[in-house]
Amino acid sequence: MSLLVVGTMAFDAIETPFGKTDKIIGGSATYVAYAASNFVQPVQQVSIVGYDFPQEEMESLQSRGVNLEGVEIVPDKKSFFWSGKYHMDMNSRDTLVTDLNVLADFNPILPDSFKDAEFVMLGNLMPSLQKRVIEQLSGQQKLIVADTMNFWMDIALEDLKEVLTMVDVLLVNDSEARQLTGEFSIVKAANKILTMGPKYLIVKKGEHGALLFHGKQVFFAPALPLEDVFDPTGAGDTFAGGFIGHLARTKDISFENMKTAIIVGSAMASFCVEKFGPDRLREITKADIDTRLSEFVQLVNFDINLV
Amino acid sequence: MSLLVVGTMAFDAIETPFGKTDKIIGGSATYVAYAASNFVQPVQQVSIVGYDFPQEEMESLQSRGVNLEGVEIVPDKKSFFWSGKYHMDMNSRDTLVTDLNVLADFNPILPDSFKDAEFVMLGNLMPSLQKRVIEQLSGQQKLIVADTMNFWMDIALEDLKEVLTMVDVLLVNDSEARQLTGEFSIVKAANKILTMGPKYLIVKKGEHGALLFHGKQVFFAPALPLEDVFDPTGAGDTFAGGFIGHLARTKDISFENMKTAIIVGSAMASFCVEKFGPDRLREITKADIDTRLSEFVQLVNFDINLV
Repeated sequence: MSLLVVGTMAFDAIETPFGKTDKIIGGSATYVAYAASNFVQPVQQVSIVGYDFPQEEMESLQSRGVNLEGVEIVPDKKSFFWSGKYHMDMNSRDTLVTDLNVLADFNPILPDSFKDAEFVMLGNLMPSLQKRVIEQLSGQQKLIVADTMNFWMDIALEDLKEVLTMVDVLLVNDSEARQLTGEFSIVKAANKILTMGPKYLIVKKGEHGALLFHGKQVFFAPALPLEDVFDPTGAGDTFAGGFIGHLARTKDISFENMKTAIIVGSAMASFCVEKFGPDRLREITKADIDTRLSEFVQLVNFDINLV
Repeated sequence: MSLLVVGTMAFDAIETPFGKTDKIIGGSATYVAYAASNFVQPVQQVSIVGYDFPQEEMESLQSRGVNLEGVEIVPDKKSFFWSGKYHMDMNSRDTLVTDLNVLADFNPILPDSFKDAEFVMLGNLMPSLQKRVIEQLSGQQKLIVADTMNFWMDIALEDLKEVLTMVDVLLVNDSEARQLTGEFSIVKAANKILTMGPKYLIVKKGEHGALLFHGKQVFFAPALPLEDVFDPTGAGDTFAGGFIGHLARTKDISFENMKTAIIVGSAMASFCVEKFGPDRLREITKADIDTRLSEFVQLVNFDINLV
């Protein structure tokens, strides 16, 4: 079962109430690949990096079954760099630096062997690039999932709306769902987004969990209550990686299985936030993931005897 | 199975983004009684009202099995009155008016027949009054649950801490849990509160659901995603009423059954917010409650096949 992942591979410098990093590995596609490769291999990665992206990181990803054939290396430019500072509640952050570097020239070209990937994860990218990726696909995909962000709603709304008509699942956070629709109620916003193209909508609420909408159906997955959220960077991408990784592994895109996939995504995200960058994702084993999934079962499982 | 409820019966005037009311029925004990009486009767009510509290409201409660023997009627004073205005997110509100009226003289006296109630719900009240109620009890109670609020942490913290050593379950919201402990992390705050007396802690997060902590165990119940939250007034008290009502009905205070009780509380709260004041709680039937509980099962139920 093949999974295509398109997004950034980059450097981040992060400041949280718990500490501060120099340049560390980041990027949406990096987090998706680390999460998804626990469930499905190969992960067919499409991205762009500069001369400064570490060879060891490439090898670390390859050792997890990430096929880097679609990652362009630009020899005379630097990798995309983002720097941000989180506030105490970890739900809000200030961007300190955005150096596009190689990302300014990104024109994703899919290797021929990637074009019939059955599952596609379009990480947060300029909507016109997401569209260009979709147009290169064979059209035989089982599921296309797209992430996006408020920034594209501000500057590329029409492109984004076109992308929405081309994907099966959209991932946004609660404020983005509101911005995209002008509806304050998340339920009303979701119903509106489901008329814009996607058949499934996932609304991420950070520490407050995530909602899956499909037609009139709705499913809720909590975030695991943690003593400390050390660094939320990449948690949304890690969630996406766990979600699509589970679907690609099971080859089942029913609503029931998507519920499980959301729990898997939440479990992966709960690891991500425990350390800076993707450090925790590099450490965890299948046994760790199983244990964490059991914790989610305990967290939400209840018996009801109707009164 | 007997349930004792102590709290306010009052008038509220409420403004939300969806509308505005004149004086309508409110009060913590009112909401608790409306919710709990769906599950257990009689509800032994202890409160205080003025000459202006409507006889029809008393009769409406009595017709649901609420025993008003412990409700003092002060002939020459008005009932407690609160007026507030909610902001768009419904999680924050401004208090416009607080007229204590009869509440300034409240000295709850338990009728003898109430003193061996097996389940006790202490609604949000001055901690010294909650303590006075506990001291009148026979000491044979199965479970004592107490609600409180930030106001008492500001002006009566020592009394509140004493109450905490006398109760089994504490109900607070997330910001109150933080204020009570000085811990920003809800998990850390919960662990600290569990050393202060209560064996169980429920942290209410409004539209983001509720968490139940007990020792190292944790359970999460979502709020039902609603198109509109019309008026959140009384939702926390209604939640408490559903919670303790289910426990009193089943006479089972195991952690497993408390999980179910939290879902019942969440279901009752989801009705409360659909109309102003307790209006919706007066309408619903057991069939409505069963349907809503089924929606909660759908909302959080998932299959996991560990990878």
